[in-house]
Amino acid sequence: MSNRINVKVAELHEFSQTVLQKKGLSKQDAEITSDVLITADQRGIESHGVARLQRYVNGIDDGLILPDPDVETITETPVSLVIDGGGGMGQPITYKTMQKCLQKAQDNYMCFASIRNSNHYGIAGYYTLMALEQDLIGFSSTNSAPLVVPTFAKKAVIGTNPISIGVPAKDHYPFLLDMATATVPRGKLEVYARAEKSMPDVWATDPEGNPATNPVEVLKNLAERKGGGLSPLGGSQELTGGHKGYGLSAMVDILSGILSSGTVGRDIYGREGKPAQVCHFIGAINPEAFSSLQEIQENMDYYIDMLKDNQKVEGQDRIYVAGEKEYEAYQENREIVSLQDKVFQNLNEIGDKFSLSLSEHK
Amino acid sequence: MSNRINVKVAELHEFSQTVLQKKGLSKQDAEITSDVLITADQRGIESHGVARLQRYVNGIDDGLILPDPDVETITETPVSLVIDGGGGMGQPITYKTMQKCLQKAQDNYMCFASIRNSNHYGIAGYYTLMALEQDLIGFSSTNSAPLVVPTFAKKAVIGTNPISIGVPAKDHYPFLLDMATATVPRGKLEVYARAEKSMPDVWATDPEGNPATNPVEVLKNLAERKGGGLSPLGGSQELTGGHKGYGLSAMVDILSGILSSGTVGRDIYGREGKPAQVCHFIGAINPEAFSSLQEIQENMDYYIDMLKDNQKVEGQDRIYVAGEKEYEAYQENREIVSLQDKVFQNLNEIGDKFSLSLSEHK
Repeated sequence: MSNRINVKVAELHEFSQTVLQKKGLSKQDAEITSDVLITADQRGIESHGVARLQRYVNGIDDGLILPDPDVETITETPVSLVIDGGGGMGQPITYKTMQKCLQKAQDNYMCFASIRNSNHYGIAGYYTLMALEQDLIGFSSTNSAPLVVPTFAKKAVIGTNPISIGVPAKDHYPFLLDMATATVPRGKLEVYARAEKSMPDVWATDPEGNPATNPVEVLKNLAERKGGGLSPLGGSQELTGGHKGYGLSAMVDILSGILSSGTVGRDIYGREGKPAQVCHFIGAINPEAFSSLQEIQENMDYYIDMLKDNQKVEGQDRIYVAGEKEYEAYQENREIVSLQDKVFQNLNEIGDKFSLSLSEHK
Repeated sequence: MSNRINVKVAELHEFSQTVLQKKGLSKQDAEITSDVLITADQRGIESHGVARLQRYVNGIDDGLILPDPDVETITETPVSLVIDGGGGMGQPITYKTMQKCLQKAQDNYMCFASIRNSNHYGIAGYYTLMALEQDLIGFSSTNSAPLVVPTFAKKAVIGTNPISIGVPAKDHYPFLLDMATATVPRGKLEVYARAEKSMPDVWATDPEGNPATNPVEVLKNLAERKGGGLSPLGGSQELTGGHKGYGLSAMVDILSGILSSGTVGRDIYGREGKPAQVCHFIGAINPEAFSSLQEIQENMDYYIDMLKDNQKVEGQDRIYVAGEKEYEAYQENREIVSLQDKVFQNLNEIGDKFSLSLSEHK
């Protein structure tokens, strides 16, 4: 375990926002992006938190991300939008599009938006949370770098393409599913590689397409494009349901990259030094399209109680419902988040270039 | 392997329809139900084909299914519907609701319907296919009998709750995902039990919640409600992603049973001798909400080619796209379907009561 350093959320916001403004983002876009990143840390999803700031800075330097894009509305109906993100940061493009979606869902019962020519948008669940804040049902998904190998194939051509859906409850936290359609994300292999542990055989494959258990090898093969990669949810075999995870990943690619007339599969991040062309699909449904908010909230509480009221397997004292762990983490981390010491150091290295520093909260 | 008997599709339709009419269904409802069943056989999904006719007959006899229900529209907006199926057969209720959805999607870009108080509706993909026939994007899902065990739990309280989505292509078959959110359906355990094979450890759990590999034991424990059951997609452990399949299954329950103010989880089939209260969620999206049909179809062809153009693992000569196997089976089985001999015999036993017989096609 690395050491951990506590940081004030307000200071981290200020720091991240200033760095992003220095890299050319508008104040508003820098604020939005920082909030998406820090919300991930607060919700215990460190892999998508401020630890990513370096990658975004590099992305801007390398031309994958344009800090001041021309965002264009391609299609607009009462219940749908297609947005061209102009190669900009994923977070502000998606945040602003979700705001429009939420208004349309308030006015016209639902709205879905397909967004093209964007970039990594952070945690999928952030945009679902935006819907939940307005007591709407939220949906969010995105395609991503081709790291996942289709069933029966050797090469990674699809992404870990997450799906998120959120539904309001009454006394319970909302149901908030936010899951990659791969069994595990690449970051999990990195954790196992550092710990020199071998992996379960449903996580990844070798260049021949066989289940792989050595994370170091898989990461090396992916980096060198030698073949193999992450397995879809269910693993690499039909026998364990891997074709289902593959199908879900493709579904996300289609909703994000095809409905927007955008980019899919191995074309994502396919052009060196040019925008990564990541695509998203988000939306919101007004409970009033089906029932009343109150009735749905009460029925959700009943359902969540049903799920949690079950005998537990040995060693477990709770049944969880999607999102619950993250909501509890958020309650813990409202004011202060703890970062890995190397993330803290890296942020200060980024800050050095702009005479900024982040202080430890003791 | 059991012997197989060929039957003419037209004769099988006539037979199934007559049986269902004798059991009290209207001519139209019997036609629809028969088409859903036989389409499953034609598409190679025998578990959901005419082999189920006996269960539907029993369901009517036992009061789980009302043959002549009062179907009621509870909520209607330009883009949504809530339907109460009145305890009737799932197929006609869902078929007629999907027809309304398709019209609304043609007129208003999209429509989603949540249906309560229905019964088993056959293959989820049937309703998605209805959308594809009109060049619309289709969606279909349903909750089902509580056979699946949530992560960390011992008792089965959620269903195998399938998800289907269909998107039109141009020269390729449409993308047509139709997948249970459990790793495998109960029928797969029955196949392994008959063959006296042991199962992969991500299929099911024993009453203590540990991975089980003996299908006979799991089926017995499920039938006797002793605990254990099917595992969600990803298995029973978080390590292999089982919490994701659990989340997807819950998502289907919510869309089907909560949005309709209907029934969820262990309440499905929860009242002996009374309607099973299965709930569905279906919908359609007009491609014009986002782009033109032609552009989407062409981009789908490009994507499908990309997925298929990959090196194959040893022993495999094709990469499949969701739905492809089933479309090919359908082409084979347009006029004639082959049934297991015991299914053929069972159908004739059902027919005997009504002086009906089904003949072998030689």
